Amino acid sequence: MSQPLVGIILGSKSDLEVMQGAVKQLEAFDVPHELLIASAHRNPDKVHAWAAGAAGQGMKVIIAAAGKAAHLAGVVAAFTPLPVIAVPMKTSDLGGLDSLLSMVQMPTGVPVATVAINGAANAAILATQILGAADEGFRKKIEDFKAQMAE
Amino acid sequence: MSQPLVGIILGSKSDLEVMQGAVKQLEAFDVPHELLIASAHRNPDKVHAWAAGAAGQGMKVIIAAAGKAAHLAGVVAAFTPLPVIAVPMKTSDLGGLDSLLSMVQMPTGVPVATVAINGAANAAILATQILGAADEGFRKKIEDFKAQMAE
Amino acid sequence: MSQPLVGIILGSKSDLEVMQGAVKQLEAFDVPHELLIASAHRNPDKVHAWAAGAAGQGMKVIIAAAGKAAHLAGVVAAFTPLPVIAVPMKTSDLGGLDSLLSMVQMPTGVPVATVAINGAANAAILATQILGAADEGFRKKIEDFKAQMAE
Amino acid sequence: MSQPLVGIILGSKSDLEVMQGAVKQLEAFDVPHELLIASAHRNPDKVHAWAAGAAGQGMKVIIAAAGKAAHLAGVVAAFTPLPVIAVPMKTSDLGGLDSLLSMVQMPTGVPVATVAINGAANAAILATQILGAADEGFRKKIEDFKAQMAE
Amino acid sequence: MSQPLVGIILGSKSDLEVMQGAVKQLEAFDVPHELLIASAHRNPDKVHAWAAGAAGQGMKVIIAAAGKAAHLAGVVAAFTPLPVIAVPMKTSDLGGLDSLLSMVQMPTGVPVATVAINGAANAAILATQILGAADEGFRKKIEDFKAQMAE
Amino acid sequence: MSQPLVGIILGSKSDLEVMQGAVKQLEAFDVPHELLIASAHRNPDKVHAWAAGAAGQGMKVIIAAAGKAAHLAGVVAAFTPLPVIAVPMKTSDLGGLDSLLSMVQMPTGVPVATVAINGAANAAILATQILGAADEGFRKKIEDFKAQMAE
Amino acid sequence: MSQPLVGIILGSKSDLEVMQGAVKQLEAFDVPHELLIASAHRNPDKVHAWAAGAAGQGMKVIIAAAGKAAHLAGVVAAFTPLPVIAVPMKTSDLGGLDSLLSMVQMPTGVPVATVAINGAANAAILATQILGAADEGFRKKIEDFKAQMAE
Amino acid sequence: MSQPLVGIILGSKSDLEVMQGAVKQLEAFDVPHELLIASAHRNPDKVHAWAAGAAGQGMKVIIAAAGKAAHLAGVVAAFTPLPVIAVPMKTSDLGGLDSLLSMVQMPTGVPVATVAINGAANAAILATQILGAADEGFRKKIEDFKAQMAE
Repeated sequence: MSQPLVGIILGSKSDLEVMQGAVKQLEAFDVPHELLIASAHRNPDKVHAWAAGAAGQGMKVIIAAAGKAAHLAGVVAAFTPLPVIAVPMKTSDLGGLDSLLSMVQMPTGVPVATVAINGAANAAILATQILGAADEGFRKKIEDFKAQMAE
Repeated sequence: MSQPLVGIILGSKSDLEVMQGAVKQLEAFDVPHELLIASAHRNPDKVHAWAAGAAGQGMKVIIAAAGKAAHLAGVVAAFTPLPVIAVPMKTSDLGGLDSLLSMVQMPTGVPVATVAINGAANAAILATQILGAADEGFRKKIEDFKAQMAE
Repeated sequence: MSQPLVGIILGSKSDLEVMQGAVKQLEAFDVPHELLIASAHRNPDKVHAWAAGAAGQGMKVIIAAAGKAAHLAGVVAAFTPLPVIAVPMKTSDLGGLDSLLSMVQMPTGVPVATVAINGAANAAILATQILGAADEGFRKKIEDFKAQMAE
Repeated sequence: MSQPLVGIILGSKSDLEVMQGAVKQLEAFDVPHELLIASAHRNPDKVHAWAAGAAGQGMKVIIAAAGKAAHLAGVVAAFTPLPVIAVPMKTSDLGGLDSLLSMVQMPTGVPVATVAINGAANAAILATQILGAADEGFRKKIEDFKAQMAE
Repeated sequence: MSQPLVGIILGSKSDLEVMQGAVKQLEAFDVPHELLIASAHRNPDKVHAWAAGAAGQGMKVIIAAAGKAAHLAGVVAAFTPLPVIAVPMKTSDLGGLDSLLSMVQMPTGVPVATVAINGAANAAILATQILGAADEGFRKKIEDFKAQMAE
Repeated sequence: MSQPLVGIILGSKSDLEVMQGAVKQLEAFDVPHELLIASAHRNPDKVHAWAAGAAGQGMKVIIAAAGKAAHLAGVVAAFTPLPVIAVPMKTSDLGGLDSLLSMVQMPTGVPVATVAINGAANAAILATQILGAADEGFRKKIEDFKAQMAE
Repeated sequence: MSQPLVGIILGSKSDLEVMQGAVKQLEAFDVPHELLIASAHRNPDKVHAWAAGAAGQGMKVIIAAAGKAAHLAGVVAAFTPLPVIAVPMKTSDLGGLDSLLSMVQMPTGVPVATVAINGAANAAILATQILGAADEGFRKKIEDFKAQMAE
Repeated sequence: MSQPLVGIILGSKSDLEVMQGAVKQLEAFDVPHELLIASAHRNPDKVHAWAAGAAGQGMKVIIAAAGKAAHLAGVVAAFTPLPVIAVPMKTSDLGGLDSLLSMVQMPTGVPVATVAINGAANAAILATQILGAADEGFRKKIEDFKAQMAE
């Protein structure tokens, strides 16, 4: 695969099954990507290094998925100028309301772009839309995708 | 102002005061933008026409703000391949939880990028980050902004 | 079946199983109806055309069912002068609270008549009550139904 | 005023200020109406008699507004074959979530048509839409109202 | 069994399985009781007659169980001077929060004594405590029950 | 005043203003009562001694009011065979949902009879209904009260 | 095992399975501990005696786990100067939101240290961190544990 | 002041007014402390350096206060073996439920000790209890404080 344009980071291996939906959707759009599993709380240095280096390595968008007190997207956003898409994971007790509020309610200055609970495919579509803001090829893929959905 | 890169759409005139925070932040970043007030429910044709034409007119990102059963961002997203940022407005009865869930929980295929309740400035920063994914100038502004915040 | 008086629209094929409860109840009341599956986000033009044409085709009431950020009922209501009944679908993460708030909290000017989460049969009963507001035959069916329930 | 077509019932005098929004909107549509203040818990017999007699007196739609454990709409619906519109009142502690759930979550067999918290004007518009299902004059008023809003 | 002192009323046959917990606990305390299944919305006249007659027939306490927009306890309380214990039933979508708020948030003048969601046994214990307020025999049973629990 | 039949206990002096509503309603019914301010967390021994002694001193019902993690009613109920009425106090952050759930969700074996958030008057009415279960005089007062409300 | 430094108390036998996660984690850190099952509502005297004696017997930290209207941690905290860690148990109806609010929202003067719903292992780690505040050995174990997690 | 034993960190200057309650309570207990204002999102490096250095500088406990998507306590906990107390700040839209869930629902491995929304004084009391686990002087202060409260 060529140089990754989208970096996906998961807070836990247990998020992988749901987040395959993002990987598959990026593959369907031929978006080069890479995937890292690293917790903001258990591997903070790894997360920081990866986030701080993402732009320099040519990535354009980050997708961060985490559950419960889901800090991963915010922590990544603190270390990169790139847009960060947050996927709140469904939780077994509060249904993901905890993950959602922990991600979407970011304080002024450091936004993350939150999608639906377990919204893996939507994160990939949004990432591709962001790539398409500057790249006609990706925008065309989104337009085709929307046309196909409408049928 | 030159060709707008960001289009801001508000569901109601009453959202204008809060959303000035987005306008000011875009101005601080010298991001050309335009603003429209039109309800997805009361002016649907106007909203559709504007959304469907946004990409063709050179816009790269949309910011949509609405409250209560806040459909505006989703309705706009249905008509454009551009990334759509959703700002859920605080409500006087449920605090904005209604606006938030009405925006963030979009079904598969049509994502919107939701920021915090009343997160006007963050919507503008996120829009600029998206522009910066392809434009070094805007990315530099984000990097400067982050450096300034850190002091 | 004769000219449909009630139009049922579903945001997704996955809503069909629950919404059979509405179909069956309308059939029990001999209310002619039609059913369309079309998403407000994925097939917006189809939804608009159907909604805008419903009154002209002789329909008197619309039932719209959708889940998550459930915009369908509001979008339909934007395009028709007919009363629109909203059925919020239960969701696997937030139990349907998201669907409910996305439907019931409509802004001033464009109401929808929301029933309980997964309240398919009740939507059909309400539609028949609305028909009965002007038609003694349908009102009689409601009265008989209520008498039967009381036993 | 001629024979009331819409009956408005409030659970408490304190709901009157908000519900003036429904009265004004009905007046704007020239819909004849009557208004009663009576609690389902404090004046149950009065509520039952009024609800049971509404259809016979020529009313076509009922609007019921109440707060907290808001049983009024459901209690009225138990005694009439007419469609009942429920307006959940905002509450000072839970914001009206209690009123909303107490109204919208009606069990199978006895629906009420719930609008937004404090949605007084919307209740009147919905009532007029229901009248318009059978009366071209009222439907025309709704169409004019929607056209006016769109401007 | 002798003259019932506690009347149990259920809004739906589906509540019976959970509410067997109340029946068993009353039997363990040798509290004479009767049980009726009748919905406040589907059988309002039956409910009213039973509630209005309960005190005259020698009952001292009522237990009312219902789910969703659970009006049963409040409706019964409107027709009797007896204390009414409310058992909110767990619901499949909102977990019983709807039932709970529909019961506990009664407006001033007509209280109900709400216990936990699905709190069938606790309703029976509370009913026996109320009987024990005036009857040393029942109070003794409560004291023995508490002593036994403590072991 | 004669021997108190109802004991009122408040978790904090700040609850006194709202709970005057209970005192006034008990006075209106001529129910002898006493009032204690003592926290389950700050004065546990005082609370236990008072609760354990209440029945022996002739009290028949307890009213306990507290806010936030409101343990007072449950703690009192652990020490007395008397019925305990719980009044959840409105809180400035969560509106009283915290107080409500902390009171109403009591585990099996130790019920409390929960009324609405800030439902001071209702607690007094319920206490009088409980007294009236065995005392015709108090029941007559409740019947008169209900008749008066109905007017 | 030597003198217990951490006391674990569970409100119900049914909490034992989840709380084995705390026991195992304490064992992994070689933290001597004891475990008691006793309900604040059903065995109040036992709970008080144990809590009041814990410090004198050499314990340094308490872990209290309970569900629903979870008063156990607050009740224990009322009787000991030791830090009390609260583990809110997941509930089958409200997912543990009730347990969480009943624990974390303690009034001024008597804090408890609340961890996540069903956060058994985290309670043990926090207890060991508290021991490590004064004991280099335990702090070293925490540092090693964090280093191991980071790999 | 001597060597700080407790470090207080605030996510924003706007949290200072509420958190003076912690400062005053620590002063009342003569606990040496220091206070830093630094955001986990805006000043991540400053936060990390401070957190990573706290134990080495002799601090024993950290108090972290933040609002909305409140990541500060978790971020600090990732960098220190010390116990971290989290104070969720009340928010103007969701009342602090967002701050609370963002703090308390920490994933396995990295706990924080969460107190009530705006629970500044309680955070200081808990910090002192933790110091008192190893220091008789501080435990004595807690015992005196509890004795004083009980009066």
